[in-house]
This record gives sequence, structure tokens and C-alpha cells, in this order.
Amino acid sequence: MVELLPHILPAALDRDMAQVAQRALEENGVRVLTGTGVEEILGGEKAEGVLAGGTRIEADIIILSTGTRPNTELARQAGAEIGPTRGIKVNPRMMTSIPDIYAAGDCAESYSLLNGQPTLSQLGTTAVRMGRVAGINAAGGYSTFPGVLSSAVTKAFEMEIGSTGLTEAQAQRLGLRAASGTVTSKTRARYYPGGKDIRVKIIAEPDSGRIMGCQIIGGEEVTQRINAASIAIQKGMTVWELAKSDTCYAPPVNETWEALALASENAARRLREQR
Amino acid sequence: MVELLPHILPAALDRDMAQVAQRALEENGVRVLTGTGVEEILGGEKAEGVLAGGTRIEADIIILSTGTRPNTELARQAGAEIGPTRGIKVNPRMMTSIPDIYAAGDCAESYSLLNGQPTLSQLGTTAVRMGRVAGINAAGGYSTFPGVLSSAVTKAFEMEIGSTGLTEAQAQRLGLRAASGTVTSKTRARYYPGGKDIRVKIIAEPDSGRIMGCQIIGGEEVTQRINAASIAIQKGMTVWELAKSDTCYAPPVNETWEALALASENAARRLREQR
Repeated sequence: MVELLPHILPAALDRDMAQVAQRALEENGVRVLTGTGVEEILGGEKAEGVLAGGTRIEADIIILSTGTRPNTELARQAGAEIGPTRGIKVNPRMMTSIPDIYAAGDCAESYSLLNGQPTLSQLGTTAVRMGRVAGINAAGGYSTFPGVLSSAVTKAFEMEIGSTGLTEAQAQRLGLRAASGTVTSKTRARYYPGGKDIRVKIIAEPDSGRIMGCQIIGGEEVTQRINAASIAIQKGMTVWELAKSDTCYAPPVNETWEALALASENAARRLREQR
Repeated sequence: MVELLPHILPAALDRDMAQVAQRALEENGVRVLTGTGVEEILGGEKAEGVLAGGTRIEADIIILSTGTRPNTELARQAGAEIGPTRGIKVNPRMMTSIPDIYAAGDCAESYSLLNGQPTLSQLGTTAVRMGRVAGINAAGGYSTFPGVLSSAVTKAFEMEIGSTGLTEAQAQRLGLRAASGTVTSKTRARYYPGGKDIRVKIIAEPDSGRIMGCQIIGGEEVTQRINAASIAIQKGMTVWELAKSDTCYAPPVNETWEALALASENAARRLREQR
């Protein structure tokens, strides 16, 4: 894996969490080069490898994963306005600047639930939610799209990696300070067989204590923890509230102290120190 | 399994969801008798069976699961006040009616986050959260306990059963109307191997649309969905909000449309019909 940026998954993870993910990939035999660009694809009819950072890496298949750009050609031809993200500009009903013409999916711009900034989400979950809103409105109904946190999850080998809201690095780029807390816990009671490691990072706004983001890497039960964190962010929950929230437990499915609560407790401590 | 009440798990599930759980138990060879009391335990030195509803059921081991009552003897002897639930009465700092004496755990009364009513939670998660608050205060710090939703989860065979907040039946007993929506979905993309059925029921307050409770039965990923629903309830989320919430998806770990969102959509529809 050749990554031009300083660490893998920069849209979803901070450097500390990306290093956890990278180590897990390496333990599974994946060689990871960061801060390295691909200079050349080698081979003729058939791929033979790449030249990356001056080194020749042999390969049978090369997968380019260099980001996507909205296909807005049809909208431009129709005269629809394009937003600052280069996605098609829409109002909360998913209507373009041309009355009764709607746009939804990877081509359409959305806005962040956290700061109202225009953003391109380009996720399947965002696309279907946008499509429903556009469909209801196009058919004469009324529905609005609430914006995005870009909650996302992926799986590599036996590791699930999820993220919602802002990373610390993203907050910094927006000129925002952030306090964070992390914890490494287990997905089942320590004495129960089959439990897996899980690492949770919670990012909070220092002034209000509100949760701004969450990153999780674990062997199981990552997806719904990201959804729980996403709901907490959407409803303005603070780290003090999440640290004391009412969660459920049984030995085969969780630890007594929920990892999201423990990470929030740690974030609250850091927040106190920063004040 | 011999249950005196009309259906199994009455503290956590409504009848419709309990029937789903009962069928799964029966498919695993468990004979379930509801609305049936145990008249007699048979045997002498060693258990031989029970007499239930006039029928003799043979058994090698008999497990009584008839509820628990707080052990308040020590508190009574010390002169501490006992609450209406027969648990030790405490203030939000977990202090009993006697200054500087704290109570926490199954013996201590709490109150519902939904309606402020005194309640006995008697769950491990509640006990550790109470204990932390009591400990901080007893050591001279300041911490308050926010109350309970009694979020709980259990596992039987390959089925996870979870619940948070009020059931429809519990709401009814409190004189409250409730709208509910249910959905049966899958825990992974339909084409992805290993996905399991999951059934989600969302209960909402008809006037405000606020979520009051959630019940889930599924083959995996139940625990953190209950936690997500619990956070939604704690922060006053409505079914309209949850139906449109920003959730995450990848084929090996979820469906594109999150089951919690689909159940909320169905609850919202029922709510509209009732108005």
C-alpha cells in the first residue's frame, strides 16, 4: 500500500489511530509506505508493478484509490449552480438552483452537521438518504436533508475501522481546538472467550464539552458504536454525559464499562487539564 | 422454561417481540410454558422435576429466576430512609438520608431518565456507575448520577436480545400512549455471507415524536444498537431525527439503511396515522 499522505485513512483517522490500523495491516503481511507517491506504473499489456519513492514494487494487480470528483457535466449543461466543493449545489430539499430539478448522491454537495460548511460526503448512506429526500420532494411531498457527519466504517482482515464527525487534524485545520481521550478495551468480559481488542478515541470541543468526533478500531462491534457516537454528536451530547450514559452489558457481548464511556471519561480529564 | 406471566422477558420486551424470542428458543429445543406457575418442586435430596400447570416436567437442575429484592437490612438498622421501590433512598450524589453515608448498587433506588419516577434498576452497568458517583462523593469530590433507562442485553444460543427505555406495555401502565414501528432487516449487506436477521422495535411518544424505548432481537450487533437508542432517548431524539440520522455502512458489517432508522421511519408513519 503506497500512500502519498503522512498516514493511511487521513479522511477518517488521526495519526495515532492510523498507526494502530497500519500495524494491524502489517501484521497481516501488508507492506505500507506512507508519505510516498507512485512515480510510475510498470508493465505493458499487463501490470508488473509500480515505482514508488524510487523503489520498484512488484504487483499483479494495481488498484488506484486516489479520491473521487463529482460528475457534474449534466448539471452544468443544464445551467445548475456548482458549489465550492465542486459538487452540485442543492438546498435542504435537494433541489438544484433550477426549480424542480433535484440532485442526490456523490455528485451533490451537502453540509456538515457540525459546522454548516459545504462538504462532499460521497458515501452510500448519504446517497440513499439524499435520494429519499429528493424523491419525496420531486413527487410533490416535503422532506429536508439534515446534513452529514460522514460516518463511515470499513473492514480489513479481522479489523473494523470506523469514524464519525471531525478528526483532531480536521478540527485544527478549521481553527478549532479539540480535547481527545482514547481507551483500549475489550469487546467482551475479560473472562469470556472470543473477546477482541477495541480502541476508541473521542474528540470534544473544549469550551462546551460537546463531542465533535469519534474514531474506533476493533475486532468487532465497531459499526454500531460509531452510530451511537454519531447520534451523540447529532444531539449535542457532551463528554460528561456520554461518560455517564446508560449502556447495556452482558459478558458475551460487552464489558461492564462501555468503551465509549471510558474514552469520554478520558477526554473529560484532558479537557479539565486544558482549562 | 416455565413463566408465570403471559410472555417471557416482560421487563424488557412487549408481547410481539417476546414471541420472536420464544420462537427462537423453541427452535433450539427449549420448551416454553407461559402464563403458567410452578406448583411444586419434585424430588428429595436431588431435584427430579417440577409440577407446572398440573403437568409433571422432569429436570436434573432447576433454576429459580423470580426477581430480586434489595437487601436493605444494614441501611434500616442505621436508620436510613427506604424508598417506595423498597430500595435505599439516595439523592443524586448517592447519599442516603444519613449525611455522609452512601448507597450504590442493587440495594439502592434510582429514578427513570424518562419520567423521573423512582425505579430499581439492579443491573451491573447501573451498579458500577452508581459506585463511581458514590466513591467520588465519599472521597470529597462532586459527582451526580443522571438516572437510568435500564438498558439491558442478554444472549441465548445465537440470539442477542436487548432493550432500553419503556416497553409499550410499561408506557400504557403509566397512562401514556405510545406509537411503535418495527422492522426486520439483516446485519450485513444481503449478498454478503454470514448476515443474520435482526428485528428492531422503536417506541415513541405520540405528541412529541420523542423516542421512549427500543427492543432488538438479532443474531449479532444488538448491544451497540441498544446503546445508540439509549443515547437517542437520553438526548430527546425524535423518530423523525433517528430516521434521517447519519449512520455508517460497509457490506460486511451493516445494511445501507440502518435498521434503527428503518424502524423509526415505520414508527413515524404510525404516529402520523394516529394523529
